[in-house]
Amino acid sequence: MPIPFLSLVGAGPGDPEMITLKAINTIRRANVILYDALVNESLLSYAAPQAVIKFVGKRYGCHTLSQQEINQLIVEMAQAHGHVVRLKGGDPFVFGRAVEEILIAKQHGIKVEIIPGISSAIAVPASQMIPLTCRGTAESFWVTTGTTSAGSISKDIELAAQSTATVVILMAMSKLEGIMDIFAQHGKSDMPVAIIQDGTTPQQKMVTGTVHDIVWRVQVAGMGNPAIIVVGEVVNLHTILMNDTLQQLQNSQTLHEERQTGL
Amino acid sequence: MPIPFLSLVGAGPGDPEMITLKAINTIRRANVILYDALVNESLLSYAAPQAVIKFVGKRYGCHTLSQQEINQLIVEMAQAHGHVVRLKGGDPFVFGRAVEEILIAKQHGIKVEIIPGISSAIAVPASQMIPLTCRGTAESFWVTTGTTSAGSISKDIELAAQSTATVVILMAMSKLEGIMDIFAQHGKSDMPVAIIQDGTTPQQKMVTGTVHDIVWRVQVAGMGNPAIIVVGEVVNLHTILMNDTLQQLQNSQTLHEERQTGL
Repeated sequence: MPIPFLSLVGAGPGDPEMITLKAINTIRRANVILYDALVNESLLSYAAPQAVIKFVGKRYGCHTLSQQEINQLIVEMAQAHGHVVRLKGGDPFVFGRAVEEILIAKQHGIKVEIIPGISSAIAVPASQMIPLTCRGTAESFWVTTGTTSAGSISKDIELAAQSTATVVILMAMSKLEGIMDIFAQHGKSDMPVAIIQDGTTPQQKMVTGTVHDIVWRVQVAGMGNPAIIVVGEVVNLHTILMNDTLQQLQNSQTLHEERQTGL
Repeated sequence: MPIPFLSLVGAGPGDPEMITLKAINTIRRANVILYDALVNESLLSYAAPQAVIKFVGKRYGCHTLSQQEINQLIVEMAQAHGHVVRLKGGDPFVFGRAVEEILIAKQHGIKVEIIPGISSAIAVPASQMIPLTCRGTAESFWVTTGTTSAGSISKDIELAAQSTATVVILMAMSKLEGIMDIFAQHGKSDMPVAIIQDGTTPQQKMVTGTVHDIVWRVQVAGMGNPAIIVVGEVVNLHTILMNDTLQQLQNSQTLHEERQTGL
């Protein structure tokens, strides 16, 4: 009989090289891999040839598993095959529903381990040379989805808007306008904002602006999910720190020209 | 003539397996490695045999380089040898003084790249089964040193104390009492707190308590730097999520007994 075991593994932000050795070694040992939509599928090549590999994420036009169905599948697979790797985009303990999966496993006597991953919250801004902290500019950062589990905008956004923290907002493109309104109400209309889509991948795309105009800029650029919102003075560092890379320089210049011409 | 180039590389939180493939591949290509005190020295074994390896961190009783001296060394080494890897504990863009190092390199025409690392802020709590977010319990997290660059306690701590965010405080053991006082003033005396020293390494040590009693508990346990402070309801998940690991169960029981007996 196989010994059931669950590893919650962070796959990192998208770039397949941004996975840890520990995660790779864990994938290699797995009997089953259950992976999410934001996981780079090239990482599945580390799996053993006989491993059972199953996609459990959300995709357009397909039936998607509920969290309850995923929980049940984890238990069934661990009992039938032994070591299950639950491979999640980013880090499993950052908005990853990991606690629910651990608790169900434990209810069935299945031991659990956590293998951290590079969080998109940090690495995606970094890939655009936006540090979340910078001495004298931003001495802390706050990572949030901006919404409560009930779906409304979190009151914490009001506190974030009053702080000196860089605010990183994940999975919140549908609430962008409401969130920007709160920052504007706290006198931060001119605060720089960056929206980065498909960060750390070749499809990566960024739009920058301010609290005042970013909603409009995002619409013009046709940006959508998955995207990360960064609000803070550190966004301005992008242009300064990127300026030896030709492509980025051109992008910055285009944006600069757009601003100059009032576009 | 070598082409000068600077890679700012995150070495992760301490566990040498918690480094990314991208970081390893970058270390392998380097002509020079300048590494900090919090970097696990076993990672230096990835360096090429002819690479110049130099410690630039802070250690008891040794002359330590100032940030200005490190900046100058980066430039000299890149001009003399080519590719310099600046290997930093955790992630280079999380309180890493990376911006200063990038700016000085750019002033000398040296191109720069960032290779993110696993941040201790996330991975160290995770190693103790403390998730920074949990649906319904903590829907955001705030990472701070708790202090301004001038050395006083940041006003942001007052906002953090009013929020529902899990608050992660790095490099702040000397300010622990002052920070806890602010949480207490905002009615959070009973909020759980964890202090984790040497996280993700075999020397890892944790003390848990509340805003009210953690200062005393830390003194009794003789905890010191480097340590991470986690304030939030998620600290309570440690006992629930750890409870199949014998050693951890014993630790939790000891703590529980201590509380029962008023110790």
